[in-house]
Order: sequence, then C-alpha cells, then structure tokens
Amino acid sequence: MTFTEGIGLRRIDHVGIAVPDLDAALEWYEGALGGRAVHREVNEAQGVVEVMVAWPEGGAQVQLLAPLTPESTIAKFLGTRGPGLQQLAFTVADVEAAAAALRARGTRLLYEEAREGTAGSRINFVHPKDAGGVLVELVQPA
Amino acid sequence: MTFTEGIGLRRIDHVGIAVPDLDAALEWYEGALGGRAVHREVNEAQGVVEVMVAWPEGGAQVQLLAPLTPESTIAKFLGTRGPGLQQLAFTVADVEAAAAALRARGTRLLYEEAREGTAGSRINFVHPKDAGGVLVELVQPA
Ligand SMILES: [Co+2]
Ligand SMILES: [Co+2]
Repeated sequence: MTFTEGIGLRRIDHVGIAVPDLDAALEWYEGALGGRAVHREVNEAQGVVEVMVAWPEGGAQVQLLAPLTPESTIAKFLGTRGPGLQQLAFTVADVEAAAAALRARGTRLLYEEAREGTAGSRINFVHPKDAGGVLVELVQPA
Repeated sequence: MTFTEGIGLRRIDHVGIAVPDLDAALEWYEGALGGRAVHREVNEAQGVVEVMVAWPEGGAQVQLLAPLTPESTIAKFLGTRGPGLQQLAFTVADVEAAAAALRARGTRLLYEEAREGTAGSRINFVHPKDAGGVLVELVQPA
C-alpha cells in the first residue's frame, strides 16, 4: 500500500441525509430515534436548510438537509435518488492540507478552495467517482 | 410531539457502504482516508463479507459490505443503486425493546426477531419506507 499516512482524518463528523420536509424528518429523528436537534442553519450558498441531530452518548451526528431552491444539490439529489443517505463527513484538522494530499494522489475535489460549511466550518468534498460512489465531505471545524 | 422517550438509541454505531471489491475499498479507506480495519467477518446468512474501519479518535465506524452471492441484499443494492452509502446503524441497549417500541408506533421492522450481526451482535432494521428512505439498523452489541 502506497499511502500509509492518510490525509489527517480524525473521526466521522456527521452523516448527511436528504429530506424533502425538514420538520417531518426532525420529528422522526427526535421522536422515534431519540436524537436532539443541536444546531439549525440556513446556507444560502448551498441552497440548503439543515439541522444537526445528536445522540445521548455523543459521537457522530446526523445532518438533515432540505432544499431551499429547485437548483440546489439537495433538490437534485431528491429528484434523482429520492430521500436518504447523501453524504459522509469526516473531521479533519486542516481541510486545505487534506485536499492537497488527495489531489497529490490523483483524487478530485469538488471545490478549488474550501467553502463555508455548518457553524463556520471550512469544507470541501471528494468527488464521489473517486470515492467509491460516496460523497465524502471534509470538515475543518471553526 | 407524541414520542418523547425515543427507543433507546445511544449513538451512531456505523455507516454501511456497499462496495463491489472489498480489498480495493479497504485500500481507499485505509490508504487515503487514514482508517484502520479492526474486524473482518463473513456472514453467510446475510450473503456478505464485511470489514469494520475505525478512525484515530474512535467514534462511529465505517462498515464496508461486499456481496458473497448475486442474491444477497448488497448485490441487489449494487445492481440498482450502485456502490455507496447503504445503511445507518445505531447502538441500542436492547434491540427487541427498540423494535417493540417502533412497532407500537406503527413502524415496520425487516425481521420478526433480531438476527445475528457483526461480532455476535443482535440486529434488526427499520423498513426504509418508514424511515425517510434510510435503511436504519439497530445494533445490540454482544
Ligand atoms: Co455535511
Ligand atoms: Co451494519
């Protein structure tokens, strides 16, 4: 194996789920699955309204993602794949360093430079075609 | 909201990813993403060979799932959806109690009774149609 150092991923940060109706989804994740909404945010640039849901023992969260506009990534995902698992996000110490390490091994990123994610984080995404069909997000917390 | 107690989910246990080639996937998750394979297992009943991948700070793991047979759930998933995110698993103290609580609110489970999952765990699944398109797994560790 050529790449023994990795790109500095520390842990799974969240699992993103595309939902058509944020409040209906939240009722399921809080009411049936016992999670708690810990953050709600509108990201106009991403065309998304989102809620982070946490569980009693902490750890990885669920990010519920609902579209603000028909042109948004989430609206397109809902249109082609339907509601469901949409992204897998990892916490990373330095998103630009991680992106550079991935590019050095020939892996494509979706953005030239990191953009603003949830709660002031800096994010980028690995191209799903270079990640076994998974939309992998890199999150450098604020 | 009617359901304030939830069903006893404690945290996200793992995220399952359908892969056509387990070793190629593992090279990506270990080599590029810096995870480590911590458990490998063949589950003949599920028709799957799987590897659990952990990250340096612990927390939720990735479960890579490759088909053993063309009739397996994972083979069918690969055939219709392609490789990618397949399931979201939560740790639960008592899988039968969680299943009963879900059934009491009209939510369907895939199995009548819990079956054997990874490393001697007991598992069941919420029907994706009752969980916003997500295949939610309940895991009671051994
Ligand atoms: Co995200
Ligand atoms: Co699983």
